[in-house]
Amino acid sequence: MTPNLQQSMLEAIEKELQRQIARLDQPRTKLFHEMLTYHMGWTGDGAGSLATGKRIRPLLTLLTCASSFDENRSGGNGSGNNWLHACSAAAAIELIHNFSLVHDDIQDNSGLRRGRRTIWVKWGAPMAINVGDALFVIANQAILDLAEYYPAEVVVKAAGILNENCLDLTRGQFMDMSYEERKDLNLNDYWPMIGGKTSALLSACTHIGALLGYANNAKLEAYRLFGYHLGLAFQVQDDILGIWGDEHVTGKSAASDLVEGKNSLPVLFALEKNAGFAERWRRGPIEANEITKVSAQLEYEGAREYAEKMAEAQTRKALEYLKQAGPHGEAGEAMLGLANMLLKRKQ
Amino acid sequence: MTPNLQQSMLEAIEKELQRQIARLDQPRTKLFHEMLTYHMGWTGDGAGSLATGKRIRPLLTLLTCASSFDENRSGGNGSGNNWLHACSAAAAIELIHNFSLVHDDIQDNSGLRRGRRTIWVKWGAPMAINVGDALFVIANQAILDLAEYYPAEVVVKAAGILNENCLDLTRGQFMDMSYEERKDLNLNDYWPMIGGKTSALLSACTHIGALLGYANNAKLEAYRLFGYHLGLAFQVQDDILGIWGDEHVTGKSAASDLVEGKNSLPVLFALEKNAGFAERWRRGPIEANEITKVSAQLEYEGAREYAEKMAEAQTRKALEYLKQAGPHGEAGEAMLGLANMLLKRKQ
Repeated sequence: MTPNLQQSMLEAIEKELQRQIARLDQPRTKLFHEMLTYHMGWTGDGAGSLATGKRIRPLLTLLTCASSFDENRSGGNGSGNNWLHACSAAAAIELIHNFSLVHDDIQDNSGLRRGRRTIWVKWGAPMAINVGDALFVIANQAILDLAEYYPAEVVVKAAGILNENCLDLTRGQFMDMSYEERKDLNLNDYWPMIGGKTSALLSACTHIGALLGYANNAKLEAYRLFGYHLGLAFQVQDDILGIWGDEHVTGKSAASDLVEGKNSLPVLFALEKNAGFAERWRRGPIEANEITKVSAQLEYEGAREYAEKMAEAQTRKALEYLKQAGPHGEAGEAMLGLANMLLKRKQ
Repeated sequence: MTPNLQQSMLEAIEKELQRQIARLDQPRTKLFHEMLTYHMGWTGDGAGSLATGKRIRPLLTLLTCASSFDENRSGGNGSGNNWLHACSAAAAIELIHNFSLVHDDIQDNSGLRRGRRTIWVKWGAPMAINVGDALFVIANQAILDLAEYYPAEVVVKAAGILNENCLDLTRGQFMDMSYEERKDLNLNDYWPMIGGKTSALLSACTHIGALLGYANNAKLEAYRLFGYHLGLAFQVQDDILGIWGDEHVTGKSAASDLVEGKNSLPVLFALEKNAGFAERWRRGPIEANEITKVSAQLEYEGAREYAEKMAEAQTRKALEYLKQAGPHGEAGEAMLGLANMLLKRKQ
């Protein structure tokens, strides 16, 4: 781990995000600007590092850029600190992530996000829809800002990758919402959904990061697949923690995913198995006082073991692709550190 | 008027829109795709030319491209039918317009759009938010598709103009929504709001159209300003028709803007005047049986005359800029025809 490089990157990311969002800091839209700075965790009740989130996506983008940097192919663009030129792309991805969170919270009727009231609760759903839209527009402006440092062809490619993955994000969101009404879900329904909801944006990080590092095509593809499988592994782990996680560590009440009726991997495994858990699940919402019994039943039916096996398999794939990509230098070490942190987390 | 050219353009626009939206026509997202094709007016109850709308924005984009086309500056790109290369940009702007309509209908709680049930009424607000998001993503993909025919520098510029105007759109939307709670509105609050809500996208049409016609900087600016003032003139006329329009011609019940409490130009004029109308307006919603009396009062206080003078002034400005831009050829004639149609409409 190289805390200094990561720290420099995180500071640059925050600065760039603020610069991008300042586009709304104009006479008649001060309150609009405030809504965005509140959501980003910089202002209002509870502002601070807990409210901003970990900025994993933009960090992953910059680490990829720095660890894949190919001086020979860069045509003299950039140098040791080449990742500084990629900051607007890193910000773009974080803005896309945040646009999706703002709209998600309306769609899921969620009142809290990182312990703070959500935008729609504070300012109403119509304003919150517009806040999400603005974050999306600014994300697109941020990716186009690459033109300051990169050839236009590279900018068009980066914007294309970003939007392709955004479309996958909306497809994943559609699947997730449409599953709520379906009674016939099985394991085949899981991977395309999280491929869109979680992996698309993580693969955009590593794909765009490597593009901006002037990586060759083979490395570009290896980085892209690393991000994709990192996303799948991350999400499966999240699903496991959402049912069997230690609530003192995760900060969420245990088995909250069961109470919320989330179609996670262990649940879909058991639905396909169609035994005791499936029967109970289809009867209606799980109550808080049933959690111990229902999660034990789920484990008994093999859902936990299956999910853990899947998480391991995806982790292995992710690390294989990372090895293929061959990240180098200080950033390469930091990259491995971040990947291990994400893949072996307990929270 | 040259119906043949316009007809060819309208057909090419529809084909390109369908091609763009087909990105969602995939195994697991058939219903998602259907939501978009329904909104675009192609499928479902009431599908057809009334449901698609007039496609004024993409038509304006293509007419600008064709009528501004500068063969010497194009470097051999394009020819007489050069507008064919601009179709994905025209589609992008129409998709942005439609994304904003889908979100608008949720925000305004509108149950009908062009006589058909709105997306949120048919499929619920969470799905409708996602449909709008997808239209927005596809718009960005469409503008990037210009790379097939244009140098990457031009594509980056076009995408930049599009997103800059999208941000203005969200700013206009913010102002409009925030006005609902304000009691101190005056005429100064009007122009920035409609500048964002209506003019931004129309100026994107003529600005991007002229860029893709390889127009020089002076013409580019003249076309941009033509679109901007066309938008202002159009909106002021819309405001007049929304209160004093003939309901047999407009298809909307007369004075519906008064009943809906819309902060239109005549209303803001009278609020600033602070006489009888202002007093009534501030007391609460106008009822249907008061319409004749209230609209007569508004006219008596000079609001209609003022709005008509403003519409004329903006129309004059728009036509002056169009003259400066000097549209040429068959497309130039069609452009003048379209401008006159938009500026002298009764519905």
